[in-house]
Amino acid sequence: MADQKKMVEEITSMDEDFAKWYTDVVKKAELIDYSSVRGCMVFEPYGYAIWENIQKILDGMFKETGHQNVYMPMLIPESLLQKEKDHVEGFAPEVAWVTQGGGQELEERLCIRPTSETLFCEHYRNVIHSYRDLPKLYNQWCSVLRWEKTTRPFLRNMEFLWQEGHTMHETAEEAVAETEQMLNIYARFCEEYLAIPVVKGRKTDKEKFAGAEATYTIEAMMHDGKALQSGTSHYFGDGFARAFDIQFQGRDNKPQYPHQTSWGVSTRIIGGIIMTHGDDSGLVLPPAIAPVQVMVIPIAQHKEGVLEKAEEVKKMISGYCRAGIDCSDNSPGWKFAQYEMKGVPLRLELGPKDIEKGQCVLVRRDTREKAFVPLEKLSAEIPRLLKEIHDSLFARALENRESRTFSATTLEELTKLADERSGYIKAMWCGDLQCEEKLKEVAGVSSRCIPFEQEHISDTCVCCGKPAKEMVYWGKAY
Amino acid sequence: MADQKKMVEEITSMDEDFAKWYTDVVKKAELIDYSSVRGCMVFEPYGYAIWENIQKILDGMFKETGHQNVYMPMLIPESLLQKEKDHVEGFAPEVAWVTQGGGQELEERLCIRPTSETLFCEHYRNVIHSYRDLPKLYNQWCSVLRWEKTTRPFLRNMEFLWQEGHTMHETAEEAVAETEQMLNIYARFCEEYLAIPVVKGRKTDKEKFAGAEATYTIEAMMHDGKALQSGTSHYFGDGFARAFDIQFQGRDNKPQYPHQTSWGVSTRIIGGIIMTHGDDSGLVLPPAIAPVQVMVIPIAQHKEGVLEKAEEVKKMISGYCRAGIDCSDNSPGWKFAQYEMKGVPLRLELGPKDIEKGQCVLVRRDTREKAFVPLEKLSAEIPRLLKEIHDSLFARALENRESRTFSATTLEELTKLADERSGYIKAMWCGDLQCEEKLKEVAGVSSRCIPFEQEHISDTCVCCGKPAKEMVYWGKAY
Ligand SMILES: [Zn+2]
Ligand SMILES: [Zn+2]
Repeated sequence: MADQKKMVEEITSMDEDFAKWYTDVVKKAELIDYSSVRGCMVFEPYGYAIWENIQKILDGMFKETGHQNVYMPMLIPESLLQKEKDHVEGFAPEVAWVTQGGGQELEERLCIRPTSETLFCEHYRNVIHSYRDLPKLYNQWCSVLRWEKTTRPFLRNMEFLWQEGHTMHETAEEAVAETEQMLNIYARFCEEYLAIPVVKGRKTDKEKFAGAEATYTIEAMMHDGKALQSGTSHYFGDGFARAFDIQFQGRDNKPQYPHQTSWGVSTRIIGGIIMTHGDDSGLVLPPAIAPVQVMVIPIAQHKEGVLEKAEEVKKMISGYCRAGIDCSDNSPGWKFAQYEMKGVPLRLELGPKDIEKGQCVLVRRDTREKAFVPLEKLSAEIPRLLKEIHDSLFARALENRESRTFSATTLEELTKLADERSGYIKAMWCGDLQCEEKLKEVAGVSSRCIPFEQEHISDTCVCCGKPAKEMVYWGKAY
Repeated sequence: MADQKKMVEEITSMDEDFAKWYTDVVKKAELIDYSSVRGCMVFEPYGYAIWENIQKILDGMFKETGHQNVYMPMLIPESLLQKEKDHVEGFAPEVAWVTQGGGQELEERLCIRPTSETLFCEHYRNVIHSYRDLPKLYNQWCSVLRWEKTTRPFLRNMEFLWQEGHTMHETAEEAVAETEQMLNIYARFCEEYLAIPVVKGRKTDKEKFAGAEATYTIEAMMHDGKALQSGTSHYFGDGFARAFDIQFQGRDNKPQYPHQTSWGVSTRIIGGIIMTHGDDSGLVLPPAIAPVQVMVIPIAQHKEGVLEKAEEVKKMISGYCRAGIDCSDNSPGWKFAQYEMKGVPLRLELGPKDIEKGQCVLVRRDTREKAFVPLEKLSAEIPRLLKEIHDSLFARALENRESRTFSATTLEELTKLADERSGYIKAMWCGDLQCEEKLKEVAGVSSRCIPFEQEHISDTCVCCGKPAKEMVYWGKAY
């Protein structure tokens, strides 16, 4: 028990210092280690296993909707990056440049991809000739690098892992439908697998992706009331196609420019999982992506038959869940704390008395509820509990969001809310960049999104009083 | 038929120009496209799908043997790369250096990983403290970059995809056993999944990995008699551990250095698949990694009911194989040539007469054998044929290797063989670097490996006539 107490002491409490709590969890749950390059981090086995589960689910959803995986080079020549004006302006300041290779100075600098629109366009130019070649629905899983000034594990790594989908379509309508489809896939993934409720909407021009005509986003609210942009989907029109001279022969036999999209989700989302569901004992993982869903812990394992039975139970339940077992000589108390820290959804305790009675103890990570369960009922009870944990995590996150969603009709009201509370502020907006900038300056909030589900809060812009065009979610964000 | 003829004409024949045949196949089978950075290539959907299948099988084999996936940064500071003397000497000449980031000159150059021993060691130093922390059995899937002077698709990309396993062990024996285990896994993978017979052995000191005590290799022979190193496994002793000051408290309570291994297989192996099994009509894929194992081609598809039945058959066989269907308005002849080019193991033709008789035509890619098969027998016949194709590809490759394996006892004999024939030359060696270099100079062959299965060819070194230590496979290699 001394051990257990010690482990728990090592985490800062959420209320005391949320940022410190976060980095404590990331380290203590063995998700991430720092490397000697600032902002480039080691994804340790447990952190990477979460990413593998995310990949597997998303990749399945992409393939089901007709997407194919490819792999593009990691290096982009400077001249290629410069082909689309807005894009290079957005990304050039935050790239890393390779200037030497094979012992020589290069004639042209090569940047490490911060995103791959330009590379996909270069390839699409080679392979798109006719409307018969469309649509092209490509995706890649890779790492990208952005030279960030300040970095935080998962949330703002300099190098991070992600998937980037890049598609080309015959018509604008098809391309827009694709951006919507992918945003809906991201939203469904967050809600049905990560138990994270999201708001779907469009970014303002100020916040949209460099080179895009429109950026769609899903925004999640963290435990502390700050927002996390959790997935984006961009519609490019034919801007890149024109810049890269990608043309195809249309059904009318005339040359046309294809319409383009891109969409991505990154390892940032792991930061979102931590900050949505975690508590003062550490990580709380949604069952769908937990590397271990049920951890078997033998009690009094030195007693005859305990270890054997525990192994048997682990093997038995492996048929319907991801099961682990800890037979190390650490104390049960240490193990309890360890797997609470790691956010394992269910703990299965099994001691000599349980074995006698043909039962075990199941303990939920989220509520700590304990139940004695006959071994022959595990095959029904474990899936039921995992589902219940998912639902209850989702409900709790939704409740947090609802209790932290406010609305304001005046600048005074909005500023006061931004000062005193942490969360979303719904308010009307005239659409002017100036008002958006003023809200940032005066109240410290940015526009999170123009939600698809609009509400009428008032007739006039919360900032300037001119007629309002749209309702916007404002807030502070990671 | 005009279309089909045209497609086939576009490939150079193997006998005419094997190198040109190879690049033709790579392009026409839509495996790879070139990018504007020399040696950095686009893995197109079909090429990447082959890699995904390879990954899935190998990853399963790694996890079954207790390995865990991680992800390390892609950048290595110069000072870190320099910690192990032999290693930096081997790799420094062929790395790319990042010297600018975020608009500034960097104080220290960062190289893009050519391999990640140094990064793993840096991390292991943080997480290995006691014998209880051992073994560490980590692997990562990533891309690496080596600044090659000449490049060829898959065989010598500047950037390539691979997996690199890096493990740490309590004892030298355990580490050596690990390198052997992984080499055996690679060999089994090549033979049982890729239908490529391999020779297992040890590299000479000249050919071993920079910084390793011993490098083990599997060598495959291509259709043209040249060798391809297809997977390697390295034993490092405690050299890196000492250089990086990684110590653990042993069972005797004393500080000790752990023993290390690394092992890797890369997208090079796809080049090996092409050059082992391909023919003058294009790619021939071993069924286990073919993205599509059976391609359904409707005949006279404008006739009523043909497309519907073809879709039905495709759906039906999808239960036990990876099936595709081509309902495009290209001619059947064009489609036949197209999927021969792409190396799809089985073609399933289905026309109105077949439908009437409740049958279809199955055509093997490797032998072009045709068979009428009743639809209700497909579930037995398809798996049987896929297995037969695998076995026959393996037998053919083995036969090629055997017919191209020679032996020599004198320098004259060896030189003559190297001049006139293409393949392996088995010959005895005294173990001196000088003799190895002389064989390269005089006969143009390098040592492929010192095979585990030794044979006694003669008593003396083929080069200098001094007493021989080992039998070596000599040859030309990719
Ligand atoms: Zn306004
Ligand atoms: Zn000799």
